[in-house]
Amino acid sequence: MIIGFIGFGKVSQNILNLLKSDDIRFITSLENRSAKTIERIKESDIEILDTFKDVAVHSDILISANSPSSALDIAKKYGKYSKGIYLDLNNISPKTTLEIDRYVANLVDGAIIGKIDFPKPVLYISGEMSDRLLFLNDYMITKKISDNVGDAAILKLLRSCYTKTVSAVLIESSEIAKSHDLEDEFFEILSLTEGDEFKEKSISRINNTLNNSKRKSEELNEIIDYFDENELVMVKAALKKLNQ
Amino acid sequence: MIIGFIGFGKVSQNILNLLKSDDIRFITSLENRSAKTIERIKESDIEILDTFKDVAVHSDILISANSPSSALDIAKKYGKYSKGIYLDLNNISPKTTLEIDRYVANLVDGAIIGKIDFPKPVLYISGEMSDRLLFLNDYMITKKISDNVGDAAILKLLRSCYTKTVSAVLIESSEIAKSHDLEDEFFEILSLTEGDEFKEKSISRINNTLNNSKRKSEELNEIIDYFDENELVMVKAALKKLNQ
Repeated sequence: MIIGFIGFGKVSQNILNLLKSDDIRFITSLENRSAKTIERIKESDIEILDTFKDVAVHSDILISANSPSSALDIAKKYGKYSKGIYLDLNNISPKTTLEIDRYVANLVDGAIIGKIDFPKPVLYISGEMSDRLLFLNDYMITKKISDNVGDAAILKLLRSCYTKTVSAVLIESSEIAKSHDLEDEFFEILSLTEGDEFKEKSISRINNTLNNSKRKSEELNEIIDYFDENELVMVKAALKKLNQ
Repeated sequence: MIIGFIGFGKVSQNILNLLKSDDIRFITSLENRSAKTIERIKESDIEILDTFKDVAVHSDILISANSPSSALDIAKKYGKYSKGIYLDLNNISPKTTLEIDRYVANLVDGAIIGKIDFPKPVLYISGEMSDRLLFLNDYMITKKISDNVGDAAILKLLRSCYTKTVSAVLIESSEIAKSHDLEDEFFEILSLTEGDEFKEKSISRINNTLNNSKRKSEELNEIIDYFDENELVMVKAALKKLNQ
């Protein structure tokens, strides 16, 4: 079996490391890649072809893991050469996934949860062809959601809906605690019921949100836009909180 | 040492069980108590005096653990007879705590966190006299917050500010997941990062909030009222969500 990568960031590199076995050949290309990516590719145990077109043509599974903004272009450009499974792992909206589906014959949309360098990342997949990827369970936990392309992207959005809104709750509650000089006690008292790691996890969430508030706001807007049939009181409040 | 109880619900009963030792005598009264409370008192190893006035007069530590609405009346009625520490464990607002302070000489305000029948409940206390209760650490974890009467009540409110708002986030996110037929997957995917008990804990929070939405709304209103100098975007949204 041949697995090809278009895009070779940390996600691709870690998948390759998890899947390494005598049964699988890995291929990619250096075409138009940055110096950093070329270095990462050369560090990895992967064959290098001249072009991504070649990679697409020769792969049984073609993995697209790039920046969200380039996902659709890549599908348009190389999807037509892919004869096997096209696994899209980009962090894109369900709408983009459905658009990609128009350019790709055997699309599976996937979401990797947790950090990819987690001890055990979990891959959620959806789409009719996803059954053919369940062999990946030999290497990493792989769960099929449904036959509907787009469900993995929706699930990622639902997850985001919870985590980003909770981050806004944490920001607000800890601000009030701080203004009453009870910030340490606030985290401590919640650790009793929320678990020992509550403080550390919460502070990391708060800082991550505040340091990337522009991107987080965009992602909240995407959620509001996609789930427009639901009344999103809390998500809209989170967006307001981030823009304060 | 003599510890007296005004109010003998589960909180008082469990404190008595935790504190049981040869060094401590426990007293209470059956005066105007319900049949259920009288039964609970008779089950417990506690001396019964004729009146709560007697209980107040004879206690080194007088514990008030009643319904929030009766906390102030009890302080007015019996606070003047208490010569030792008056430990208020009622679930009351910081404002009520400060009002009680006007009727009671040696007030300590306390908050028990987690269910009282937790394996290890934690008692937070504040007020100048709270140092004299630190011996309770021999029996249950007891933490002094500060010399300010009211800080334990504020801390309880801060805790509530987080937990009640997160409940509203859970209600909203799981509703959206349900409307996309991905409710199980929603809980499962979050368990990966939020911990194995996430689903069970979340469903219990959601049900608890929905089944007591009137009381939860009142408590959110109390939070909004007390922290009126902070801009409460998320808490106000939670109130709106509960009243949908």
